[in-house]
Amino acid sequence: MTAALHGVIPYIATPLHDDGRVNRPVLTRLCEHLIGAGVHGLCPLGSTGEFAYLTRDQKADVVETVVKAAAGRVPVIAGVASTATADAVSQARDWAALGADGILAVMEAYFPIPDSGVVDYFTAVADAANLPVTIYTNPNFQRSDLSPGAIETLSHHPRIAYLKDASTNTGRLLSILNRTEGRIGIFAASSHITVAVMMIGGLGWMSGPSCIVPRQSAELYRLCRAGEWDAAMVLQRRLWAVNEAFARFNLAAAIKAGLTLQGFDVGPPIAPQAPLSDAQTGELRTMLEALGAL
Amino acid sequence: MTAALHGVIPYIATPLHDDGRVNRPVLTRLCEHLIGAGVHGLCPLGSTGEFAYLTRDQKADVVETVVKAAAGRVPVIAGVASTATADAVSQARDWAALGADGILAVMEAYFPIPDSGVVDYFTAVADAANLPVTIYTNPNFQRSDLSPGAIETLSHHPRIAYLKDASTNTGRLLSILNRTEGRIGIFAASSHITVAVMMIGGLGWMSGPSCIVPRQSAELYRLCRAGEWDAAMVLQRRLWAVNEAFARFNLAAAIKAGLTLQGFDVGPPIAPQAPLSDAQTGELRTMLEALGAL
Amino acid sequence: MTAALHGVIPYIATPLHDDGRVNRPVLTRLCEHLIGAGVHGLCPLGSTGEFAYLTRDQKADVVETVVKAAAGRVPVIAGVASTATADAVSQARDWAALGADGILAVMEAYFPIPDSGVVDYFTAVADAANLPVTIYTNPNFQRSDLSPGAIETLSHHPRIAYLKDASTNTGRLLSILNRTEGRIGIFAASSHITVAVMMIGGLGWMSGPSCIVPRQSAELYRLCRAGEWDAAMVLQRRLWAVNEAFARFNLAAAIKAGLTLQGFDVGPPIAPQAPLSDAQTGELRTMLEALGAL
Amino acid sequence: MTAALHGVIPYIATPLHDDGRVNRPVLTRLCEHLIGAGVHGLCPLGSTGEFAYLTRDQKADVVETVVKAAAGRVPVIAGVASTATADAVSQARDWAALGADGILAVMEAYFPIPDSGVVDYFTAVADAANLPVTIYTNPNFQRSDLSPGAIETLSHHPRIAYLKDASTNTGRLLSILNRTEGRIGIFAASSHITVAVMMIGGLGWMSGPSCIVPRQSAELYRLCRAGEWDAAMVLQRRLWAVNEAFARFNLAAAIKAGLTLQGFDVGPPIAPQAPLSDAQTGELRTMLEALGAL
Repeated sequence: MTAALHGVIPYIATPLHDDGRVNRPVLTRLCEHLIGAGVHGLCPLGSTGEFAYLTRDQKADVVETVVKAAAGRVPVIAGVASTATADAVSQARDWAALGADGILAVMEAYFPIPDSGVVDYFTAVADAANLPVTIYTNPNFQRSDLSPGAIETLSHHPRIAYLKDASTNTGRLLSILNRTEGRIGIFAASSHITVAVMMIGGLGWMSGPSCIVPRQSAELYRLCRAGEWDAAMVLQRRLWAVNEAFARFNLAAAIKAGLTLQGFDVGPPIAPQAPLSDAQTGELRTMLEALGAL
Repeated sequence: MTAALHGVIPYIATPLHDDGRVNRPVLTRLCEHLIGAGVHGLCPLGSTGEFAYLTRDQKADVVETVVKAAAGRVPVIAGVASTATADAVSQARDWAALGADGILAVMEAYFPIPDSGVVDYFTAVADAANLPVTIYTNPNFQRSDLSPGAIETLSHHPRIAYLKDASTNTGRLLSILNRTEGRIGIFAASSHITVAVMMIGGLGWMSGPSCIVPRQSAELYRLCRAGEWDAAMVLQRRLWAVNEAFARFNLAAAIKAGLTLQGFDVGPPIAPQAPLSDAQTGELRTMLEALGAL
Repeated sequence: MTAALHGVIPYIATPLHDDGRVNRPVLTRLCEHLIGAGVHGLCPLGSTGEFAYLTRDQKADVVETVVKAAAGRVPVIAGVASTATADAVSQARDWAALGADGILAVMEAYFPIPDSGVVDYFTAVADAANLPVTIYTNPNFQRSDLSPGAIETLSHHPRIAYLKDASTNTGRLLSILNRTEGRIGIFAASSHITVAVMMIGGLGWMSGPSCIVPRQSAELYRLCRAGEWDAAMVLQRRLWAVNEAFARFNLAAAIKAGLTLQGFDVGPPIAPQAPLSDAQTGELRTMLEALGAL
Repeated sequence: MTAALHGVIPYIATPLHDDGRVNRPVLTRLCEHLIGAGVHGLCPLGSTGEFAYLTRDQKADVVETVVKAAAGRVPVIAGVASTATADAVSQARDWAALGADGILAVMEAYFPIPDSGVVDYFTAVADAANLPVTIYTNPNFQRSDLSPGAIETLSHHPRIAYLKDASTNTGRLLSILNRTEGRIGIFAASSHITVAVMMIGGLGWMSGPSCIVPRQSAELYRLCRAGEWDAAMVLQRRLWAVNEAFARFNLAAAIKAGLTLQGFDVGPPIAPQAPLSDAQTGELRTMLEALGAL
């Protein structure tokens, strides 16, 4: 898998059986569905994939299943997340051994860590496996953030090739691009207007909503790449309701409710997260029907 | 002045004499310069204009001077800001009597105020004078924010016609547009990528940086309106350094340093704000030279 | 008035007529009542006194009225608050000319001000009038805070003699005492357990609740000074309900509702602040009755 | 172990070998030392014990070692922490099986969880093992907090008997005591003035600093219980420097540096946390010498 990452790379929800085992058949079918809808990569163990709620064994099962399902048709970018450097390094090595094509690296934190420690952590992950690394920061949910200075330092690592930014600050992405262009490619999250990120030079987006509107997301990407900005904005505005719902609802609950409506038996979010209420599910159903996603 | 607001509307810095009196000749010359550079309106008493540091008498002098200098060539949108409803109403009436063409309304807060109080405050300001009102929220500096619900309610007031948003969350603007379109026009701030805001349907921007790069700002606006998005992004990326400097430095200190370099004797920011250091001024000089603004 | 400040110093609510003029007779009667109840000083223009909502003329009327009412029986500590150094200096001079015995100094902020600017501001206020100064920080409501380093620097000014801290962090007070003891006396706010602050070496408290439970507050102070800590804690626990109500309700609305119940016609809080609801007023009434304050 | 919890319960640092295995001999010797110094319980897997950086296997080794070392002389309160209910329940069962005398329960969070989910999580932990549970909230480091309402609800569970609060808001503890007294006993953290918490009715404290000043902590507890408040405050003020250092430095780095100085080969904090610098270690040494702890 040598082509550079780009396009729509959905965060894959993690379907579990009642006893906590990964539901491999449903996960396989979901991956097949997403590839058929035209996505450009698959990202297991992102925020939407509930990486923060899974055991190490569950995580390994997820990566193994998604790699097999992708079967080399699209790259699989597997999430690595920990508070501890050694644990993150061990995950990166395991996912590489399982056949992942890239790493999405997250640093969790309990005690505050200065920039030097943040750089050390991500450097260790990038050194651990011969795979391109996407560094990922989500200041809404993670207790650690990537400062512009840390990103600039990390951008010189030969394997740190991409940044996924899930802040809501789109201008921050332009600042980062101006400082690191040529070294770091930018992916948007659902908190950004993806058309705006594409216009400033982004490569695509990694996000939860793409998991339930994959076809529409791929079309939006096509319009942006074709420079058809007006048509892109028309579609973006229609799709934006999904992004808003994800910010309002619990993210994993919303994606799992949407996938259930679409016929994927992914189950509820992991407790103590609660499933969507009936009213919220109804709202989501209406939204997906309006978008032709149901 | 009946044409709807649009385009580049700089926040005007407030030049003061050493004894605190408004320096009317310098302020007049600055307004003349900005109009000559092609801006589409003037906004005295914005954040950059140090409204939060001026006495009522100083504010009245500023509005009177800018209205006279504009002489009807471009609309003058005067800032109203207070913690107390009665005080804000009184300002709005006074600025209308002095000839302002519109009101930029800010609500300051000490104790937290629920949405109902926020709506009451802005409604009272809009009721106070027969002028179009731009509601303005800057969560970085103000202790009160405009919730989407409050904005929606206020959008139904016949005189509340515009929103100036100085958050860094560009997606929030798309959400607001989706809910209020046709009732509320959106202006960007320097915290947003203005090209992105124009692309999603914004009317222009009200900002401090436009005060020191007015010609370049007007050209950026022209490119956006012409749909020349690629050329707009090239210019935007060059101008972005100014926005970054404004976020990094004290805003009023930066604008006053830049104007001083351009030959406007605006003096230092109001104490206890400190002027830029020599090193910071040097950085600003290099930046303005690179942009052809010096 | 040469005795050092100590004891219970209530923040005085500001009664206004419907047209916004200060209700001097009610304010005078309130001061008389508080002195009769045994308080050790009076503080007009504190947070509870709605300093952030008053015009300069209203403020001057308040200080003049309270100084006359106190008639030298207890010290009057008048609030000075501004974003701008020159304005704060002018207030301090005016309050001194009106006969205030001390200054409670607050720094408001719009743009962030580094510690050096904070020190400059408070130093200028302390230089402005020959009165002891209490520096006051309330990180819940003010956009500026006093760092331990700034407090230490300011503690060496010959007129900066006291600190009023309205954070909720009682341990911070012990840290400050350890660094400045002998130079800075500490007053608690209603956000602290006053008995705890007395035990670690505090001088007393300046607070809004004392305005509606002055007799009980004076008794609590007496018990603390006598070292009767167990009895003090019994009373403290009963009084704590008032502090909790003040943190839950709008502070000015709560104090004005309580004083109205006690027969002082202080009117509603200044708009856009809302008065307490009937249910909230009922809750407050029950609380005051239980404390023998009604 | 039937006696109710009280007194000084240090958070035990976790000594590791270079390869990540728990250093059982050092951990055993540390427990022996603390019991000899007069502490009233031992808490492995608290914040200071780096629970957030340990694997499940490491955690189990820690609990097993501490239980054996305590040998029933003092109760062992073992930390349970997770984002996921099922994982927390499994930890609680395992620690009970290993012989722990109580559970310190922490809820981690990635996505925000409403109060109902927080209550469900802690209830499940308390249902999982027949041990008294201390619920623990540390809003400085954890992305979830225990609201007063959630605490009140949880206080009715027959096994939820204690609260450890690591906020800096001492008044909050009084509010909780007023609502739950008789059902929930309160333990302070190093962020509180422990004498103040004892005075308002606390049972003792669970904290990191007690691990390096155990004898002094036990003496402070004795003075508080004897009602010798003045003597207690004298000692508290001397000990406060340690609490301040822990808030300023990385907590685990500080405790491990202190224990190393005291002859316990606990190693560095787990990466990416950095050890104290030489200057910081020197500062800590001076502090411990002054307290007779070195």
